[in-house]
Amino acid sequence: MPEHPNWATLTEDDTQPWHTLESRVLVAGFRTVYEDRVRLENGVETLYQYRPRGPRAVFVLPVTAAGEAVLIRQYRYPLRATVTEVVAGGVERGEDLHHAATRELQEEVGGVAAEWVALPGFYPQPSISGVIFYPFLALGVTLGDTAHEATETIERVVMPLREAYALLDSGGIQDGASSLTLWHARAPLQARGLL
Amino acid sequence: MPEHPNWATLTEDDTQPWHTLESRVLVAGFRTVYEDRVRLENGVETLYQYRPRGPRAVFVLPVTAAGEAVLIRQYRYPLRATVTEVVAGGVERGEDLHHAATRELQEEVGGVAAEWVALPGFYPQPSISGVIFYPFLALGVTLGDTAHEATETIERVVMPLREAYALLDSGGIQDGASSLTLWHARAPLQARGLL
Repeated sequence: MPEHPNWATLTEDDTQPWHTLESRVLVAGFRTVYEDRVRLENGVETLYQYRPRGPRAVFVLPVTAAGEAVLIRQYRYPLRATVTEVVAGGVERGEDLHHAATRELQEEVGGVAAEWVALPGFYPQPSISGVIFYPFLALGVTLGDTAHEATETIERVVMPLREAYALLDSGGIQDGASSLTLWHARAPLQARGLL
Repeated sequence: MPEHPNWATLTEDDTQPWHTLESRVLVAGFRTVYEDRVRLENGVETLYQYRPRGPRAVFVLPVTAAGEAVLIRQYRYPLRATVTEVVAGGVERGEDLHHAATRELQEEVGGVAAEWVALPGFYPQPSISGVIFYPFLALGVTLGDTAHEATETIERVVMPLREAYALLDSGGIQDGASSLTLWHARAPLQARGLL
């Protein structure tokens, strides 16, 4: 499966303007939170709370051979709201991105894709987090049974691509990463005459 | 200044499928992290770590009367990398969104806008955070002196709008919220003949 050229750029810089004086773990585990004491290049010292690099997630816009978008409605506990999203999920330890995308497509909407298009990756919250999101467009998707985790509340929603993009344009896709996946997928969908 | 119609939809739902059994603070302060014990509608109980609703941030794409985009290059300590972004910053306690946008435009690039366009707001990380991001397009911007915080490492970059959008299309805008601001600003910029 393809990679996007920008993925190789989502790395640490060779030179660092800030200097780490001390680092301690505020919250341990997979979603670690650090608090570091740092000295900036202007000599100022400050405390910085953040999640380090490491966690990655994949986002998948599944499109059927008939030209329908497969979205989900998922309850998001931190928001106390159900949000319209593309297929998404965390990359497991040691898992590669394409395996994660294929797995999430299968688990969340029971989908299998004929073709994958890699889209530009991005940092969702650079001010406080090192997490990286990798979006994909999945084409020629066939739909079967889902395999939701017991801790997910997810409903599958299939709609014409034009309707999904009308939602995007009007602000109806409240999840930022899903919106960005749809935006970056627009040109390849148009190039294939699907939109 | 205008509001976007979707802003009123970025709220909690009336009915909640999950039930909170217990809630405790893992990290206190403005960037609170909670750990809740919750019961899902299928009866499963689970622990959920998250940042609650409350924090908001504004994102501003400043465009000069000459049709140039004003971007910034900002060092992001959690990433150990300098990232190309639009103007952005946290909304202070009790501050309204337009005040925050006007203030950040002034502080980060020394900008004053003649016209504001509100763009769709979004959740940057619904799986773990209740934070909400509000993007704006600022038009007819004049540039003066900046007033960076002592804990920011920021460089102002002015470029033709077409160049900024070529960067966006190729994956050169690594910050997700900045990319989304640029995408949503594209139609209003085209409508004004600026792009």
